[in-house]
Amino acid sequence: MSSSFKVVVVGGVAAGMKAACKTARLRPDAEIVVIERGDLISYSGCGLPYFISGVVHKREELYSTPIGVERNAGFFENVKNVKVLTRHEAVKIDRAEKSLEIRNLDDGSTRSIPYDKLVLGTGAVPVVPPVPGHDLGNVFTVKQVEDADRISSNVEKDSLRKAVIVGGGLIGVEMAECLADLAMDVTVVEMLPQILPMLDPEIALLVQNHLDEQGVTVSTGSAVTALEGEGGRVTAVKCGDRSFEADLVIFAIGVRPASDLAREAGLDIGPFGGIRVDDRMCTSDPDIYAAGDCVEAIHLVTGKPAYVPLGSTANKQGRVAAKNLCGEEDTFQGIIGSAVVKICDFNVARTGLSEREAFDAGLEPIACLCPAPDKTHFFPGANPVLLKLVADRNTGRLLGAQAVGPGDVSKRVDSVVPAITAGMTVEQVSKLDLCYAPPYASAMDNVITAANVLRNKMEGRMNGIPAAEVREKLEKGEDFFFLDARSPGEVAEKAITGATNIPLGKLRSALDEVPADKPVVCFCALSLRGYEAALILEAAGRSDVTVMDGGVAMWPY
Amino acid sequence: MSSSFKVVVVGGVAAGMKAACKTARLRPDAEIVVIERGDLISYSGCGLPYFISGVVHKREELYSTPIGVERNAGFFENVKNVKVLTRHEAVKIDRAEKSLEIRNLDDGSTRSIPYDKLVLGTGAVPVVPPVPGHDLGNVFTVKQVEDADRISSNVEKDSLRKAVIVGGGLIGVEMAECLADLAMDVTVVEMLPQILPMLDPEIALLVQNHLDEQGVTVSTGSAVTALEGEGGRVTAVKCGDRSFEADLVIFAIGVRPASDLAREAGLDIGPFGGIRVDDRMCTSDPDIYAAGDCVEAIHLVTGKPAYVPLGSTANKQGRVAAKNLCGEEDTFQGIIGSAVVKICDFNVARTGLSEREAFDAGLEPIACLCPAPDKTHFFPGANPVLLKLVADRNTGRLLGAQAVGPGDVSKRVDSVVPAITAGMTVEQVSKLDLCYAPPYASAMDNVITAANVLRNKMEGRMNGIPAAEVREKLEKGEDFFFLDARSPGEVAEKAITGATNIPLGKLRSALDEVPADKPVVCFCALSLRGYEAALILEAAGRSDVTVMDGGVAMWPY
Repeated sequence: MSSSFKVVVVGGVAAGMKAACKTARLRPDAEIVVIERGDLISYSGCGLPYFISGVVHKREELYSTPIGVERNAGFFENVKNVKVLTRHEAVKIDRAEKSLEIRNLDDGSTRSIPYDKLVLGTGAVPVVPPVPGHDLGNVFTVKQVEDADRISSNVEKDSLRKAVIVGGGLIGVEMAECLADLAMDVTVVEMLPQILPMLDPEIALLVQNHLDEQGVTVSTGSAVTALEGEGGRVTAVKCGDRSFEADLVIFAIGVRPASDLAREAGLDIGPFGGIRVDDRMCTSDPDIYAAGDCVEAIHLVTGKPAYVPLGSTANKQGRVAAKNLCGEEDTFQGIIGSAVVKICDFNVARTGLSEREAFDAGLEPIACLCPAPDKTHFFPGANPVLLKLVADRNTGRLLGAQAVGPGDVSKRVDSVVPAITAGMTVEQVSKLDLCYAPPYASAMDNVITAANVLRNKMEGRMNGIPAAEVREKLEKGEDFFFLDARSPGEVAEKAITGATNIPLGKLRSALDEVPADKPVVCFCALSLRGYEAALILEAAGRSDVTVMDGGVAMWPY
Repeated sequence: MSSSFKVVVVGGVAAGMKAACKTARLRPDAEIVVIERGDLISYSGCGLPYFISGVVHKREELYSTPIGVERNAGFFENVKNVKVLTRHEAVKIDRAEKSLEIRNLDDGSTRSIPYDKLVLGTGAVPVVPPVPGHDLGNVFTVKQVEDADRISSNVEKDSLRKAVIVGGGLIGVEMAECLADLAMDVTVVEMLPQILPMLDPEIALLVQNHLDEQGVTVSTGSAVTALEGEGGRVTAVKCGDRSFEADLVIFAIGVRPASDLAREAGLDIGPFGGIRVDDRMCTSDPDIYAAGDCVEAIHLVTGKPAYVPLGSTANKQGRVAAKNLCGEEDTFQGIIGSAVVKICDFNVARTGLSEREAFDAGLEPIACLCPAPDKTHFFPGANPVLLKLVADRNTGRLLGAQAVGPGDVSKRVDSVVPAITAGMTVEQVSKLDLCYAPPYASAMDNVITAANVLRNKMEGRMNGIPAAEVREKLEKGEDFFFLDARSPGEVAEKAITGATNIPLGKLRSALDEVPADKPVVCFCALSLRGYEAALILEAAGRSDVTVMDGGVAMWPY
């Protein structure tokens, strides 16, 4: 087969295969070759934890079409007109010659293949910290199907029981659930003071508490200093003078872009070590495109480079790369850092900037916490969602959202993704015509209510105080009146020490029970009644009144 | 109690209570009175079908707070500082005097109460067609809690078995599910050629087929001409010369705005009979506001008045009215016609303009149908979603979305609501950073895939043909090659008569089986492989090749 248009793609997972197949659709005359180091192509890396835990039964499902056809080299050749060379490694790009040197991993032979356009979809590699013992037996990362195979077979063969996961990011917590599902004792050690650094600390703490309830031990502020072993196999993870028993260790401290091939070819590399591309997914060489986990993207809220490797982004970028290399126009403007993860019975999602990220970006964020049911509260199966919205105090622009809980969080976060992308204000979001019927939402959807709470805060009607600050006040013995506006029945179920209960319905006739000379902090279950209580007190002339953000739902102590 | 600021609200359900309570929070000094004709206030009208069917067990849940406190007059007085007069009717507005005449429905006495600002939240009334027999026994509408009580008690007391629902709109289909849940024989008669006119016909047909599978009979094109009865009770519904046995009839042909009070006071009324308000929710009288089901809103896509009564909109409008009447600024710009409804095992949602509405609005719509699983296909519990997107062919602006199926449709529709509101193009939507993890979405979310399919159509790469047109061709015996690109196993499960099966993977080597001189229509299960087949044929030089929109998933015959 000889063609006037030769496209070579390095990497056969998400971005690479998408770029190859879209190119084949746009240019049926093109000769397209994909170079993949591994045995498998077009597999779902995100599905690996579910395969290890047995939720996904068969390995092949990770690389099959919805109707069960295996996405192998034959499939891509017959159906997509794309040739795939598995077990071949890209060794070197000769940009002057426009050729790629590849090595056959089975026989070690090398050869050069010419390209008109080259696409780099080299992905990312898991970071393994260079601590002593990192190369012991039963120490793994989770990136490829083969990693999952090794973990599964070792767990079974050696009856491994104690797992330590190093890193409490997305993959770390997914693996925590996965190994807990296999009835292992699981400990997550995280160097930072919190897990899931994409979340603000108070939200991450709710997730940590949930993991705790499920029997997963989380140790934050624990930096791994060494792995210890016996007979070549890991036995413990050391974090300074603390030690965690382990017969299985997963490193999940993150990935770095696999950009060596590009770097060695002299292509521009960005601040995160990813290949730098323009919005056409073109590298600094006009004949070389790159897409997926090996590139950096622009964060559309900050306008700055960001590195958030995800299969969803890889697919979009691969398509844009294909269109441009075929001479059409298309752009990928950037990402906003959306992510969702299932953690046992909790759904956790986020998009845009967290409150801390907004601070770090030099903005003046203002945030609200809004706990509410995900359906009309009387509808069976209604479950709580805790929604945090973050806005720019000066412009009112919505910057980000975080949601956590057993309820439908992914809908709430997805429904603000276009709003953040379009630069909508919190006020505009509060008027969105979101769908309403009792099985799906309350008349005021969580997003609408949260936006209104945030508007109240921005307008100075509601002075919020984070639970962590209230707790500090209590611990310091500060003199304030801590007003619990719930019903006595609710207080009996879960009381907060130091609070005085005056049910909201009785507050107007019990104003003299609230000392006139002390600051007041109001709360209830969700702090909607807490807000009403504060308004009643302010109407009665009290000046120093605050509302504890999110009420008891956000009291994780 | 005497105050310098008197606010009177007519109507104590959604918009009225929201306006009253928000006013009380903004102006603690205000004297606020709500006039409500019925016994109950602040109840969820949308919950009535679920109370009738027993999904919601207790009547009180419809008008209680999430913690179980009944939202009655005492609650609003104690907690919200809002006085409510139930069983009082607003008789007449004296705009010159700024007073409202009200009648006590228990003793018939009338009196006038003065207002500084008046809010009309008078809601809507169900339309009852003036056909003979409409006032027979066991003929109901569903609007108030008392209606639900009557339906429930009559069904039980008289062991009613055969229900006819007149009207196949949202309430009609909800009631169909509800009464089918009570093991009644249910027939829905609809005057139009389809149920759910907010959906395009091919989508509505999927819902109709689902109702059919659940044992609900749907008779479209059936206009009710009379009800027949015996002993004062209904026995049959006549539609011309057709007759449907019935011992229970529900009229669900729609509601009209309850705007008589406003009309008689000389306030401006809009084209749909609703009270005309500006974006501050102010009527043509600067001291009278109106909100909820009694007003018309602006449709943000067409820019024209629309009447879409919903509790969600009522709450937003009530809040805006309150802010403005208290002297603050806030606007309600409009709606985009979002709606969601549960129909047995189907979820159905829509927003923006349907394809037909877009035509009717003078636009040139282009649409795609995209069936796909709601999660990564290998994740347990993944369910199909059929998503239709409608765009403006000239500008590429996304105009609307419709989704139906057992999968998570409400997320997909809600996630394009802000996109349509912000005027995003289909291309922008195809790049949205929606959340991705296997339990929640595919790497390419349904919305992203659908947007890409629509882009392919807009760019002329994919020539779609609706299933209905293909069926017509087949029935007329037109000469074309109907290519089924599925696997033989899939064809064995559900074949379409007249199609020839060439699995996609074999097509390249079987090109001579496709006649060179005939038009070709390609399809598969979802028409993704159908699209690939068309591209292969086009690459081989065939010119008249189309793809059946949505594949077998959209073949409802």
